[in-house]
Amino acid sequence: MPNAAKIRARVGVLGASGYTGAELLRLLIHHQGVEIALLTAERRAGQHMSQVFPQFSPYSLPKLLAIDSVDWKKAALDLAFCALPHATTQRVIKALLASAPGTKVVDLSADFRLADPAAYARWYGHEHHAPELQKEAVYGLSEIYRSSIKSARLVANPGCYTTCAELALIPLLRAKAIDPDEIVIDAKSGMTGAGRAAKEEMLFSEVSEGFHAYGVGRHRHMAELDQEFSRAAGRMVIVSFTPHLVPMNRGIFSTIYVRGLNTSAEGLHTILCKSYAAEPFVHVLPFGEMPHTRHVRGSNMIFIGLANDRVEARAIICAALDNLTKGASGQAVQNMNLMLGFPETLGLEQVALFP
Amino acid sequence: MPNAAKIRARVGVLGASGYTGAELLRLLIHHQGVEIALLTAERRAGQHMSQVFPQFSPYSLPKLLAIDSVDWKKAALDLAFCALPHATTQRVIKALLASAPGTKVVDLSADFRLADPAAYARWYGHEHHAPELQKEAVYGLSEIYRSSIKSARLVANPGCYTTCAELALIPLLRAKAIDPDEIVIDAKSGMTGAGRAAKEEMLFSEVSEGFHAYGVGRHRHMAELDQEFSRAAGRMVIVSFTPHLVPMNRGIFSTIYVRGLNTSAEGLHTILCKSYAAEPFVHVLPFGEMPHTRHVRGSNMIFIGLANDRVEARAIICAALDNLTKGASGQAVQNMNLMLGFPETLGLEQVALFP
Amino acid sequence: MPNAAKIRARVGVLGASGYTGAELLRLLIHHQGVEIALLTAERRAGQHMSQVFPQFSPYSLPKLLAIDSVDWKKAALDLAFCALPHATTQRVIKALLASAPGTKVVDLSADFRLADPAAYARWYGHEHHAPELQKEAVYGLSEIYRSSIKSARLVANPGCYTTCAELALIPLLRAKAIDPDEIVIDAKSGMTGAGRAAKEEMLFSEVSEGFHAYGVGRHRHMAELDQEFSRAAGRMVIVSFTPHLVPMNRGIFSTIYVRGLNTSAEGLHTILCKSYAAEPFVHVLPFGEMPHTRHVRGSNMIFIGLANDRVEARAIICAALDNLTKGASGQAVQNMNLMLGFPETLGLEQVALFP
Amino acid sequence: MPNAAKIRARVGVLGASGYTGAELLRLLIHHQGVEIALLTAERRAGQHMSQVFPQFSPYSLPKLLAIDSVDWKKAALDLAFCALPHATTQRVIKALLASAPGTKVVDLSADFRLADPAAYARWYGHEHHAPELQKEAVYGLSEIYRSSIKSARLVANPGCYTTCAELALIPLLRAKAIDPDEIVIDAKSGMTGAGRAAKEEMLFSEVSEGFHAYGVGRHRHMAELDQEFSRAAGRMVIVSFTPHLVPMNRGIFSTIYVRGLNTSAEGLHTILCKSYAAEPFVHVLPFGEMPHTRHVRGSNMIFIGLANDRVEARAIICAALDNLTKGASGQAVQNMNLMLGFPETLGLEQVALFP
Repeated sequence: MPNAAKIRARVGVLGASGYTGAELLRLLIHHQGVEIALLTAERRAGQHMSQVFPQFSPYSLPKLLAIDSVDWKKAALDLAFCALPHATTQRVIKALLASAPGTKVVDLSADFRLADPAAYARWYGHEHHAPELQKEAVYGLSEIYRSSIKSARLVANPGCYTTCAELALIPLLRAKAIDPDEIVIDAKSGMTGAGRAAKEEMLFSEVSEGFHAYGVGRHRHMAELDQEFSRAAGRMVIVSFTPHLVPMNRGIFSTIYVRGLNTSAEGLHTILCKSYAAEPFVHVLPFGEMPHTRHVRGSNMIFIGLANDRVEARAIICAALDNLTKGASGQAVQNMNLMLGFPETLGLEQVALFP
Repeated sequence: MPNAAKIRARVGVLGASGYTGAELLRLLIHHQGVEIALLTAERRAGQHMSQVFPQFSPYSLPKLLAIDSVDWKKAALDLAFCALPHATTQRVIKALLASAPGTKVVDLSADFRLADPAAYARWYGHEHHAPELQKEAVYGLSEIYRSSIKSARLVANPGCYTTCAELALIPLLRAKAIDPDEIVIDAKSGMTGAGRAAKEEMLFSEVSEGFHAYGVGRHRHMAELDQEFSRAAGRMVIVSFTPHLVPMNRGIFSTIYVRGLNTSAEGLHTILCKSYAAEPFVHVLPFGEMPHTRHVRGSNMIFIGLANDRVEARAIICAALDNLTKGASGQAVQNMNLMLGFPETLGLEQVALFP
Repeated sequence: MPNAAKIRARVGVLGASGYTGAELLRLLIHHQGVEIALLTAERRAGQHMSQVFPQFSPYSLPKLLAIDSVDWKKAALDLAFCALPHATTQRVIKALLASAPGTKVVDLSADFRLADPAAYARWYGHEHHAPELQKEAVYGLSEIYRSSIKSARLVANPGCYTTCAELALIPLLRAKAIDPDEIVIDAKSGMTGAGRAAKEEMLFSEVSEGFHAYGVGRHRHMAELDQEFSRAAGRMVIVSFTPHLVPMNRGIFSTIYVRGLNTSAEGLHTILCKSYAAEPFVHVLPFGEMPHTRHVRGSNMIFIGLANDRVEARAIICAALDNLTKGASGQAVQNMNLMLGFPETLGLEQVALFP
Repeated sequence: MPNAAKIRARVGVLGASGYTGAELLRLLIHHQGVEIALLTAERRAGQHMSQVFPQFSPYSLPKLLAIDSVDWKKAALDLAFCALPHATTQRVIKALLASAPGTKVVDLSADFRLADPAAYARWYGHEHHAPELQKEAVYGLSEIYRSSIKSARLVANPGCYTTCAELALIPLLRAKAIDPDEIVIDAKSGMTGAGRAAKEEMLFSEVSEGFHAYGVGRHRHMAELDQEFSRAAGRMVIVSFTPHLVPMNRGIFSTIYVRGLNTSAEGLHTILCKSYAAEPFVHVLPFGEMPHTRHVRGSNMIFIGLANDRVEARAIICAALDNLTKGASGQAVQNMNLMLGFPETLGLEQVALFP
């Protein structure tokens, strides 16, 4: 770190004009270990970030480039954050690593999250374009795969819904304390999770003052849940999962219904408390208390609460995080910290913005 | 009805300064069968409705009275809507019916919803103050208890959460098409459901831009659900139920997870379609489509959707209504229409206000 | 009316898939004088309204057509509402009236609002495509031009900002009670005013939790204001006007700063009260009280308040209306009522939806 | 600073359970020059901050005390932030400084903002309770009174509306570039400006989806504006000022209408640019561009834009800041930095949180 403070790591953000890109910049601008060396944004190439996100007007940042104009070798990045659309991602990372094999990559898309090529093909309808990298990629759920992430070159940052549900359930599945066949995850997301592309159904007037479910029975984040829950349980796990949209900008809230296996709700709570006692970004609330998304807004925290259900042997878990921070860019910086040898919390200390 | 149009029924609204009171007036002002003969509001007694809710400025309405100043006999109401707080309600309705036994009552509080005195005492912590009326009261879920409501003197209007979940599930439970032991109801409500009392946790800045659960494991609406689901199933049913608050004014959205009993999701959908084919206020969406609360805002409709869960034998039902209309005052007017012999849809034809 | 109730007028809505189209349907579905005979929507031609706006699912409505597929003569409309984009409008109305000269038209676009061809060319950058119709068109500010509207074939429905400011100021300008050279109009609009086209800057996450001005110094509604204020004052009037966007769906709020000419603020208030004493849709609040947009939401009302400014001889006027109702589709129906000989308030009686 | 990093200044927050209190803690928790030594909150005395604002759960903070239980001498604070209600403030600061005269104070209430005892008495209806401190207090508009603030013991932090309007206008008034008799300030605020007290009119359902003006013609912030504008102009200045509430949490937006005195709009823009060229927290946008509140959310920045009005010789200025940060607690920390000799930007570097 003393050196890091002097010789900062060169990082780039590919896809800086989207919401996860802006969130990465928010966190990286004052990060003491890095310098922002390169920014790309296809449709806004040639512009300044202040034209795309005026909140960056007070800061001096590199101009936005088109990806194809970048020479990865000359760019000499220590680490690239890749916040690009599905499919494009595979092509870009393959080219980048071929040209600059020493650059590390944190990918925020879903492209490298599934380890199993067959699962990938089944969920995405085509073979993976970089199967050897798919094999190499480490799933970037920081608290669970910390040691692998530290030595990884390519980290697949988890989805926002999945981070929220997985941190709540993996310790319980590993402990075989809940029935893997009776898990219901009812998930709610703020609108930034849908990205910045102009779509009618994302207009303010379509979204405000209302609530709805989407992708019922068939959301791609299910593939990630299957993979991680099955790994944790040591057997195949398929959960009920329904995503919904909340008229707010930031936040994921998961209400999770589980059945204890010879374990009371208090017992489940104890497992979570013990699992996360030393974790700086996971806060387990006192038994019976439940989180609000607003209390983690803009922070890298996940808050988890657990209470008794009145139905015999069942418990209800609620978990809340900011989909752009712990659910995306915050965890990406956390992973960068692990990969580059910085203290894990560096640049991620912001207190939540409430109200 | 021809007569009703000429000699309008005299109706009163007790508790007109709350949100359900305002919603009753919105619906009753242009209702062709009634005249608004009496309004009460304790803290605002002596004021005009336009001081309490300025949207009524263009209308001529009776001044707000204190309840204790009303002589029920002289008031000669054909029907009173009672939108008063818990406990007060029992006292007021008892006095009203003692003094004016010919007046009919639609009560919007929870006081007369539970038929079983023991259940009441268990959930509310004290004996009912008007047990004979508790016995007399008819549960006002219009579509389910239509014929009893028609001849009732006292109707206990159901809660907003419960109307939403019960209309979605009762036909399936009656048909024994779902497992009564595996029902999870994840419910989300707009903020008007919490009423107009000034509480810190209901302030705009506490509520906007966030999402949370409350009353986890112990919400009083559960008592109503138990009663109605058990009646429908012919055996005791206890469901998992979690209410949440959404930063929007109006709307209840219930996501319900069920397991079919020898019935596919399509089969469940068919049962709902058949049950509600002739109902003017219940719209079952095509299989696989899901509702939005915004599409029922300000209307008396409930929209119900049903889709396959990817978990074997399970289905997901989503239901949406406006908590102030079908979830409270709209259903109250629907019940009044039944009780006074008006066409059931009279005064309830408004199209939803979207956007 | 007795006849109207039996033989309903045939009306069409051109451009039914936008917000003003949906609002027209909301108002027309239960209007006792009309039947909805024709609906068009280019990109959604062939679909049902319930696919475009699910709130119409419970209603039976004509399928959406492409405009070019309509034979206006055969359509035999008594009146067409035209809610189409700028420029397209001129072409369509010209063709419609050429083919079916007996059809009346209420146009909700800005295309026929400016009576002066030179002003039109200056603000829109090209000559008008139907100058003879431009001459024929009557400006549809119902309260001000009622008698001309009654006999008009083509009515140019005013803009939302302009309706709000004009109803507040025209009586004062006509009475020469305020200085025409010192008018500042600070206007705020809900998001539906921006329409349903998918634009990045209208996404929920771009708009919620923030406030901004736009079109500062150069908004096209200024042309309308110039025209109407100059007409009212009998001399040229140019005002300062700044529009802003509020994170809400519906509502225009105008804060207007004026200097009285030998007239106190109370005197100005009296002029407004007298001007609108008999108007069903204009409510002047008691002196010193100010309106809220929420109290007119979904209604055809405009609420106007006036108070003393503490600066000598100055007053502050606030006016509020629903941009989709009195600011667009409600006033369009009001104009239709005038044009077809219905009572002016028919179908427009809805009480505002608050909360 | 090297020492400050080792021996941190002891600071206290009086009134930590309100929104400005929470915002102070958000900024101070990671401030490298201070330790949070004392917190008070009358109604929550004895509780932890995490019970009042759960976002602080991950942090270790002193328990909340009742003010009367504090011995100011023993507390040995280097600086106290006072975020208490009007009137209480005067009593508390008087006692504090009597007991611990070496403690510095930044007061966030309005109690010490008016330098003129007569003006205070006129606006607040009673004599000031600590007139000698009123004389001592320095008005804490950091950019304008920097040098006096550095040596002050008691700083009266400006109001949110006033900071926004004053930073936009003071340079223009000082330069005599605008007419002091023709200033109209139309101001809009987010809801946190109204504080955390439970009032009916601040409930979510009263506020969301609507817009309104309040305090028209008579808002106490006018007294501050009068004082500062008159100081800047060297003559008495009284402006038109109307505050409004926007359904959002954070943000002040001021739209200001001015008339140039022998100075074009471009000339006015140049004056602002030059005045603030070296200011870290004031960003003047390019001529003709206007700010959004969302781009300063959670940051200590004020963004100012200026454009031509189309009315001869007039210009429109828009300014945006976060009412809790630059409009209250951020400027309070900025003032603390000046008073304690820290770099002015220390702890205030956060980038705005958008989206």
